Amino acid sequence: MDIFYSELLQDSHIALSSDESKHCMKVLRHKTGDTIHVIDGKGNLYLCRITKISQKHTIAEILETHEDYGSHQFTVRMAVAPTKNMQRYEFFVEKAVELGVNEIIPILTDHSERKVVKTERIERIVLAAMKQSYKAHKPIVHEMTPFEDIVFEKYPGYKAIAHCEDGDKQSVMHIAKPTDITILIGPEGDFSLKEIQLAMENNWLPISLGPQRFRTETAAIMALHSVHSLFE
Amino acid sequence: MDIFYSELLQDSHIALSSDESKHCMKVLRHKTGDTIHVIDGKGNLYLCRITKISQKHTIAEILETHEDYGSHQFTVRMAVAPTKNMQRYEFFVEKAVELGVNEIIPILTDHSERKVVKTERIERIVLAAMKQSYKAHKPIVHEMTPFEDIVFEKYPGYKAIAHCEDGDKQSVMHIAKPTDITILIGPEGDFSLKEIQLAMENNWLPISLGPQRFRTETAAIMALHSVHSLFE
Repeated sequence: MDIFYSELLQDSHIALSSDESKHCMKVLRHKTGDTIHVIDGKGNLYLCRITKISQKHTIAEILETHEDYGSHQFTVRMAVAPTKNMQRYEFFVEKAVELGVNEIIPILTDHSERKVVKTERIERIVLAAMKQSYKAHKPIVHEMTPFEDIVFEKYPGYKAIAHCEDGDKQSVMHIAKPTDITILIGPEGDFSLKEIQLAMENNWLPISLGPQRFRTETAAIMALHSVHSLFE
Repeated sequence: MDIFYSELLQDSHIALSSDESKHCMKVLRHKTGDTIHVIDGKGNLYLCRITKISQKHTIAEILETHEDYGSHQFTVRMAVAPTKNMQRYEFFVEKAVELGVNEIIPILTDHSERKVVKTERIERIVLAAMKQSYKAHKPIVHEMTPFEDIVFEKYPGYKAIAHCEDGDKQSVMHIAKPTDITILIGPEGDFSLKEIQLAMENNWLPISLGPQRFRTETAAIMALHSVHSLFE
């Protein structure tokens, strides 16, 4: 069944945006009476019947509501330095949504080559990935945030930094099942020694993703996959 | 240090192809006397000094040889149906090389929308990923192979099929450490029931990659990551 995104809910009806209406009518050729799925980003998946459709405005009546659809048992935040090649970061975003993530925080670090990101573009990729993988919860996408702001943030639970410098590290596969976890992933040139030091002074635990060095987006996807694997 | 690929080895010297020579001289601006790394695809990483350089032909003297560089302790074959959007398959190929893979087999299945792949293009991605992630062993890239040919193949070790139909499945995270493993990943529309049946009759074990349905390329990357995680 085709799936759409909308936060415009009133009584037992949902309105689609003009973009979604156009896609619904022109591309997917839906008509009044057709059933569709709608996600609201707050955890609800609705089965709906189209009651009115035009290229600008579509109204659908809710037939069934599935609450807390496709959620996972823990909160995971990925604070990842955007890559020079933005396509690689977008791939991380898509895969993170597909695997399941609660917050995506682009971080600005000492060795970051990319200092600006367009969060609207990331939001669009998030929405597309949500629809594709039937995720009713919309992850929060933060604006680019300086490393120092993140490192002093009082996140609950397990806070981890995946850096490539030598030193004692816990394997991401052997951490206790966290109910809340935040993972820092550095840019192409890794975190600076100053950043690693600062993170450790503020109770971020160094973790290892295995014997290999990965690209930024690979490290981020693999770390997230490992966290999900802990719960399976 | 910059890294190049060449199989052209004679006595204690290596020649670079014209493409690699041009890249070495024009883009990376190397000169006679510079040291570079060269991988040969057979497991050797060489530290070399350039003795002659032109845009068409470069010769480098081997100073050090590191045998069996960056290899892993097991053999893993990924037999994956190419995705409709080729970029997604190419992303799988890049990540597979980065994680470590021995063979990549594009498979033609009942529900495959993509029936043709350009293996030269896949080879190019393999080479780029090898250089980027310092892998001295070149994975074998097969031509598109019909599902039936793969399913009857007498691969040693553990043979697994990751399908999305209901039924008893072993979690990929709980298989015994295999020294040889082959994993089948289906196309967008999954394997057909006939294919799943045929695989099971031929001792392919159904495995689960977790509670979620993944895109083809995501499933392939996550399955491979899980196999690597078993050894960490």
